[in-house]
Amino acid sequence: MQAVKPSIHKITGINIATPKGYYASGLHCGIKHKKLDLGLLYSLVPADAAGVYTTNRVQAAPLKVTQENIKQEGKLQAIIVNSGNANACTGKKGLQDAKQMQLETAQKLGIPSHFVGVASTGVIGEHLPIEKISAGIKDLVLDDEIKGSIDFSQSILTTDTVSKNTAYTLKIKDKDITIAGTAKGSGMIHPNMATMLGFITSDANINQSDLHSALSYAVDRTFNCITVDGDTSTNDMVLMLANGMAENEELNKNHPEWELFLDALVMVCEDLGKLIAKDGEGASKLIEVNVEGALTDKDARVIAKTVVGSPLVKTAVFGCDANWGRILCAAGYSGVSFDPDQMRILIGDSEVVVDGEPVPFSEEEVRNYLKGQEIHITVLLSEGIGSGRAWGCDLTYDYVQINASYRT
Amino acid sequence: MQAVKPSIHKITGINIATPKGYYASGLHCGIKHKKLDLGLLYSLVPADAAGVYTTNRVQAAPLKVTQENIKQEGKLQAIIVNSGNANACTGKKGLQDAKQMQLETAQKLGIPSHFVGVASTGVIGEHLPIEKISAGIKDLVLDDEIKGSIDFSQSILTTDTVSKNTAYTLKIKDKDITIAGTAKGSGMIHPNMATMLGFITSDANINQSDLHSALSYAVDRTFNCITVDGDTSTNDMVLMLANGMAENEELNKNHPEWELFLDALVMVCEDLGKLIAKDGEGASKLIEVNVEGALTDKDARVIAKTVVGSPLVKTAVFGCDANWGRILCAAGYSGVSFDPDQMRILIGDSEVVVDGEPVPFSEEEVRNYLKGQEIHITVLLSEGIGSGRAWGCDLTYDYVQINASYRT
Repeated sequence: MQAVKPSIHKITGINIATPKGYYASGLHCGIKHKKLDLGLLYSLVPADAAGVYTTNRVQAAPLKVTQENIKQEGKLQAIIVNSGNANACTGKKGLQDAKQMQLETAQKLGIPSHFVGVASTGVIGEHLPIEKISAGIKDLVLDDEIKGSIDFSQSILTTDTVSKNTAYTLKIKDKDITIAGTAKGSGMIHPNMATMLGFITSDANINQSDLHSALSYAVDRTFNCITVDGDTSTNDMVLMLANGMAENEELNKNHPEWELFLDALVMVCEDLGKLIAKDGEGASKLIEVNVEGALTDKDARVIAKTVVGSPLVKTAVFGCDANWGRILCAAGYSGVSFDPDQMRILIGDSEVVVDGEPVPFSEEEVRNYLKGQEIHITVLLSEGIGSGRAWGCDLTYDYVQINASYRT
Repeated sequence: MQAVKPSIHKITGINIATPKGYYASGLHCGIKHKKLDLGLLYSLVPADAAGVYTTNRVQAAPLKVTQENIKQEGKLQAIIVNSGNANACTGKKGLQDAKQMQLETAQKLGIPSHFVGVASTGVIGEHLPIEKISAGIKDLVLDDEIKGSIDFSQSILTTDTVSKNTAYTLKIKDKDITIAGTAKGSGMIHPNMATMLGFITSDANINQSDLHSALSYAVDRTFNCITVDGDTSTNDMVLMLANGMAENEELNKNHPEWELFLDALVMVCEDLGKLIAKDGEGASKLIEVNVEGALTDKDARVIAKTVVGSPLVKTAVFGCDANWGRILCAAGYSGVSFDPDQMRILIGDSEVVVDGEPVPFSEEEVRNYLKGQEIHITVLLSEGIGSGRAWGCDLTYDYVQINASYRT
């Protein structure tokens, strides 16, 4: 677990609308059977915006529209999201539909349409039921902080079993700043963003181009370090808004408290990433792999991601089997160069491999440890001081069941 | 299916010892409970040898020993293989054990020890029961062609449910040449060789350095295009022997019938690769993905491998779900650049995506097709004339079951 720095405080609850000037809402417009499927996030004033998008060659229509919007002034004031239908592989009509969602939201709120971001998640290849969405947009009411936050965080879910929320506050000089986040994602989760949506709000006043750097930095170390099944989707996106309403002295890369802000943002993204990994389709456990002693931090992250993504490691954890060989083997095929004869591996606190060879350990103790809900695997190398972590989940019968019949 | 050229003929049966001058044998020496676990392949005369090895940073002791051997004169005359224990992550004692296997086999056969290749497969991190193996080596008897071939092909198996064999003959000028192969592999199968052993024998007379090129060419297009679960092991190896006893005019890259020889070798490797994919742990179906119209053959193979390796595609095929979106999505994250708006996808003969968008198709027809045992998926691009194929299997409950409890 990452220790919370004394100057950064965690806020409990569901709080995407907690930072100053934010409102949220969610309702059922009829794309799904019963659950909420349309959400709106709104800032009283235009907010500096940054986005990180799927690297998939196939990008869904709403991603194209949102990227274009942010390019114009680097600002967003609202985000409209639907779940149940991804508006991906839907051609020209798909683009029109995304633009219509954007336009109608802008009209309702009385703001320029390029201040509205659009996101969709769900089944791909089917056209949006745009009339239902239009009617839904009309019905959306910006609720109070708690109800709005709850409804919005629910409205973006698909196969998720829980909504995913976190928030932290910190002081920049004498001003309190809040960063809050909500995310969805369960299957198709992999490095480089996969059927994952993340929304982060902050009332920080922050230099616009540095906001983008900060988000990229945080996403690389968190969302891009989670994997459920190695599949990367067409619709992934993390959007961050910072509306400046905390009235702090402008944050930028040279500000003495920039690192503190970055730490808080990483904490928000890490919490959401771990919540997604833990809620992986069919998952029964969260797995965290920590790699130290690599040549670089990036090398360490690559090894960590490879180990946590190995189906054989995942099934071994599911079966509570202390199969250190699979951990060692996955590290070996990560593509990163290291000396296997100096490798150490721990499962929980139990050392299982030293200098590349197994050492005696209590099978029973490790088996009991593996029955827990959060499994830590540590890989220690002797190449340098690079470190990195990655998160995933076990591979279970339920994963197969969920995905053998998703569409039908 | 690759059409067999009129000048190349398939030989049925189990025939690793069929090419002129080869003998094989297998027995139970006690590493496993009951099944055969020690095999020997022998050529009457030293054979030109080529090997392709795992790319995993962690290489098992027998691979190190075998590579060293082949480096000396480029020749092998015998291969000793055990299953049930991989002799991987076993440190200095592991290397000693591999060398002892080699030496005792050489002494038994009266040949130089660097003419003996060594291979092991099975559990990793445990020392070989070397006394059992030593006793087994003494007991090995080079049997007649059929019994020897059957026993050897059985002795190399681990979680495989069937032994995997193929052979082809072709004429080079007026001489008949035979190429035969046997392989093992079921779990941990992925591009770049994964707990897979392949042994290919031929009586061809072939230029030694061109033999290596030929094997690499064939392996790249076959063994390296199969995936079961994305895990790459410490012990993979394909070894080929060519002893020249067919007395053909020496084959080399400039020989007019070089291509024919290459075709036959690819057929041997492709047959074995497909047999491995079909026997993937828990698999109920073989999946073949064929990509055409990519910029290069390599691009096409990368896309094909990514699609056939996607857990979501694999579970959809298991569930007989015509989920074209997952195919399109996997192609999109393959890392290969292409225009998704010109992409076509077929499941069997049914066109499901044209110009990047779904088209109406009979769900019932495709569902019935997906109930078959061999599933063909075709991805057509408009980037060039590159084509490539890859093979894999569906992801089933049985995969999870097998791997949640392998070690225990």
